[in-house]
Amino acid sequence: MSFSHQFATTPTGHLMLGGCDALTLARKYGTPLIVYDVDQLEAAVSQFTQTLAASGLTSAVCYASKAFSCIAIYQLMARLGCHVDVVSGGELYTALQAHFPPERICFHGNNKTKAELEFAITKHVGTIVIDNFHEINLLKQVLTNQNATVNVMLRVTPGVQAHTHRYITTGQTDSKFGFDLASGQATTALQWILACPRMNFIGVHAHIGSQIFVPDGFITEINRLCTLIAQWARNFAVIPAVLDIGGGFGIQYTNDEHPVPVKTILQTITTTVKQSFKQAHLPLPALWVEPGRAIVGPAGTTLYTVGSEKHLPGRLPYVAVDGGMGDNIRPALYDAHYTALNAACPTAPAINRIRLVGKYCESGDVLVDDLRIAPLSAGDIVAIPVTGAYGYSMASNYNRNCRPAVVFAQRGHSQLVIRRESYSQLVINDLPYEGSN
Amino acid sequence: MSFSHQFATTPTGHLMLGGCDALTLARKYGTPLIVYDVDQLEAAVSQFTQTLAASGLTSAVCYASKAFSCIAIYQLMARLGCHVDVVSGGELYTALQAHFPPERICFHGNNKTKAELEFAITKHVGTIVIDNFHEINLLKQVLTNQNATVNVMLRVTPGVQAHTHRYITTGQTDSKFGFDLASGQATTALQWILACPRMNFIGVHAHIGSQIFVPDGFITEINRLCTLIAQWARNFAVIPAVLDIGGGFGIQYTNDEHPVPVKTILQTITTTVKQSFKQAHLPLPALWVEPGRAIVGPAGTTLYTVGSEKHLPGRLPYVAVDGGMGDNIRPALYDAHYTALNAACPTAPAINRIRLVGKYCESGDVLVDDLRIAPLSAGDIVAIPVTGAYGYSMASNYNRNCRPAVVFAQRGHSQLVIRRESYSQLVINDLPYEGSN
Repeated sequence: MSFSHQFATTPTGHLMLGGCDALTLARKYGTPLIVYDVDQLEAAVSQFTQTLAASGLTSAVCYASKAFSCIAIYQLMARLGCHVDVVSGGELYTALQAHFPPERICFHGNNKTKAELEFAITKHVGTIVIDNFHEINLLKQVLTNQNATVNVMLRVTPGVQAHTHRYITTGQTDSKFGFDLASGQATTALQWILACPRMNFIGVHAHIGSQIFVPDGFITEINRLCTLIAQWARNFAVIPAVLDIGGGFGIQYTNDEHPVPVKTILQTITTTVKQSFKQAHLPLPALWVEPGRAIVGPAGTTLYTVGSEKHLPGRLPYVAVDGGMGDNIRPALYDAHYTALNAACPTAPAINRIRLVGKYCESGDVLVDDLRIAPLSAGDIVAIPVTGAYGYSMASNYNRNCRPAVVFAQRGHSQLVIRRESYSQLVINDLPYEGSN
Repeated sequence: MSFSHQFATTPTGHLMLGGCDALTLARKYGTPLIVYDVDQLEAAVSQFTQTLAASGLTSAVCYASKAFSCIAIYQLMARLGCHVDVVSGGELYTALQAHFPPERICFHGNNKTKAELEFAITKHVGTIVIDNFHEINLLKQVLTNQNATVNVMLRVTPGVQAHTHRYITTGQTDSKFGFDLASGQATTALQWILACPRMNFIGVHAHIGSQIFVPDGFITEINRLCTLIAQWARNFAVIPAVLDIGGGFGIQYTNDEHPVPVKTILQTITTTVKQSFKQAHLPLPALWVEPGRAIVGPAGTTLYTVGSEKHLPGRLPYVAVDGGMGDNIRPALYDAHYTALNAACPTAPAINRIRLVGKYCESGDVLVDDLRIAPLSAGDIVAIPVTGAYGYSMASNYNRNCRPAVVFAQRGHSQLVIRRESYSQLVINDLPYEGSN
C-alpha cells in the first residue's frame, strides 16, 4: 500500500511534524512516540466550527473524547471553544482535571453507573444523554438525593446505520444504544422525562456509525429526527432546542480511501436541517455534531524504531518495530489499514515491499500487512501517519510493554503531554500474595 | 450457549470461587472483579509437573506469563517450582519484583530491544530464546560490554501450525518468529551461536500455535525437531540438552469445545519424545513445555454487576454490565466465545436468552452474543468463567474506564493481589499543555 498523504519535510528531507524534525523528536522523547501536530488539530476543529457557523445555524462542536483523552487535549478543546463528550467517570474526571468547563460537557453511555451519574451531577455536567429506561430511574434518584436538576438529551436509534460508503435503513436499528423509534420506546422515554421536573429536556441525539464517507446516511437521519420532533411538538407541545446528530465523520487512513470532504458533508447536513425543519414548520434547532476521529486521527503520527527483520524465501520480509498491538490495536481488532514512511526519507521511492510487525508475542501483531516503503534497517525511525484516534485511547499493557509517550508539536516547538509509562508503574497496584494460611 | 462446567456452590446456592461466596467477593472488592481460585491454579500446574515427571524425562514447566502477569502469580509459580517465560522487559521487571529466581526465567520475543537484553543480562536471566540474526548480534554486543555469558535456546519454525483441531504442515511456517528450517536459516543461526563463546547453546525451541485440542501437531513438531537435532549432532557434534516444545495447550471455554485432556496430550508428547530420540540414537533431552492459558485460564472468573437492559421487539434483549471490552477484549478481537452465570443462582434453569454487553461506547462491545442464563436484573452479579488468561493482561483504559481489581481465593480465604485502578492513576502521566508561545 503506497501513500501520498501530504506531509512536510525538513530542509534535510526528514519527516516534519508540527514544524519539528521527526528524527529529533524520536531521539529526544524515545520511541514508540505519538506526535500530534497542534496546528492540524486546530485546523480540524475550525473546519467544523466555521462551516457550521457559515450555515447561520446555532451550533456546537462536541469533541468525542473517547478517540483520545488526556488533560492536554481537553485544554486545547476548551481553548478552541468546543464542547466535549465523555463516556465514563474516568473521561469526566480527566476533563475536570483539565478545568474543562463542565457546562460544555455531554455525558454519554449505554450503562452509566449510579456512581458515575452522582459524580456528573455533583460536578454540574452540562448535559446527560439518556440512553435507556434504567438510566431515567437511576438519574431521577440521583437528582432527588442531590436536590439537583440537569439538562438531558434523549438518545434514539433512528433506523439508519452508516459505515463508509454504505448505509442501511431498517425499521429499527439493532443496537445496544438508545431508544427505538419504531416501537414507540423513544416517545415513552420522552413522557418519563417530561414527568420528571428535575430533568430539563433540551434535545434529541442519534449516532449512526463511524468512518462515514458520504452524507446520505446523515440526510436520512436528520429527516427521521425531524419527523419525530414534529410528532412530539404536536402531541406534547415540546420542541427540543438541540438536534445532536452524533459523529462518525470519516477520515482517510490510506490512499485507497476517498471520503467526501468534511466541509461538503457538513454543508449537506446544514442544508438538510434547514430545509427539513422549515418544511415541518418547526423552529430551527441548534445543531450539535460530535467528531472524534475526524479531529484527532489525521493529526497524530506514531514513531517507532526498527529492530529485527526476517527474510523467508518467496515471502514478504518481516520488519519489526518496538511497538505494535499494545499501542495500536486497530489493525488486529478492526482489520484497519495504515501506511508507513521511513521518517529519514519520506519522499524516497518506496522500492521495498515488507510486512511491518510489532514486538508483541502474537502472530496477529501486524501493523501494516503489505507495505511499500523506502529501505529500512535497524535503528531507523518508521512513522505511521493518521494514528491520532483510538490508538493511545485503546492502548494496553499487553506483554507488560509500557504505553508510549505523547507529544504535542506546533511550529517547531514540542512538549510532552503524556509521559512514557515506567516499569515501576506496571506494578503500582500489585500486592504480594500471602497464601491462604 | 448453555454451560455445564463444573462449579461449586455455597450452602445458599450461590456461586463459590476458591471456597468464597462470589456475591460476598463482589460486595467486598467491587466489580468488575477477576477472581482466581488458587487451588485450581495449583492443580493445573501439578497436572503438568506430575504427568511429565511420571514419564521419567527430565522436565520443566515454564509458565508463559503473558497470559497473566503480576507479582502474585510469579510468587505462586516460584513456590510451585515452575520456570517462567517473559516476553518483555516489563514482564521481567515484574517477575524480579516478585523475587522469582532469575535462573528459571526464559526471555522470549521477536524483537527484544538492546535495553531489554541489557536488563536481562544484568539480572542473570536463565535463558535467552534467540529469535533472529539481528538478536544474535545485539546479544553478542551486550554480553561483550558486560563481560558476561548466558544460556541460549534457538527458536525455530518447524513448519507446523496448530490450532484447535486443525493443524497445517507446510514447507515453512510464514511467521514473524524464529528461524526457518527449510531454508537452512536455523542451521546458520546455530553456527553463529556456536561461534560466540559467550553464548552457551542449551536447547531448541518451537511453538506451533494456541488452543490446541489434539496432540497431532505436537507429534509432527517433535519428530521434526528430533530430525534437526540429529543433523546438528552429525554435522556439528553438538546435542542440545533441552527440547522446548512451547505451549498452546487448549482449554474449554464453552460446552461446545472438547479438548483432549492435557494429561493425555502430555503423555502422547512424552512417549513421542522418547521414541523419536531413541530411534535417532540421541540421548533423551530435558523436555520443557510452556503452558500459559492452560494454567490461568480456567482458574479465573470475572464478576460484573448488571446495569441497564434494552428490549427490542423480535430481537434478543441486551443486558449491560459494568465492564466489557476494556477488561476482556477477546470476544471483540478473536470472536472468542464465553458463557455466563447468574452468581446468585448458577444452577437455576437458564430460561432467558439474551445478549450480554459491556458499558463501552462501541457496538462491538459484546461479551456473550447469545447467552442462555437464569433471569437477571439490575444489581445482580454475573460471572463469566474461564477468563483467567488474556483478560487482565490485555486490559486497556479504553473509554478511560479503570482496570478491575484481581483477587486470589483459596479455601474460603480471599486476598487482593491487584488493586482496582483509580481515577487519579488515569492521569498519572498527563502533563498540561503550555502552548507553542
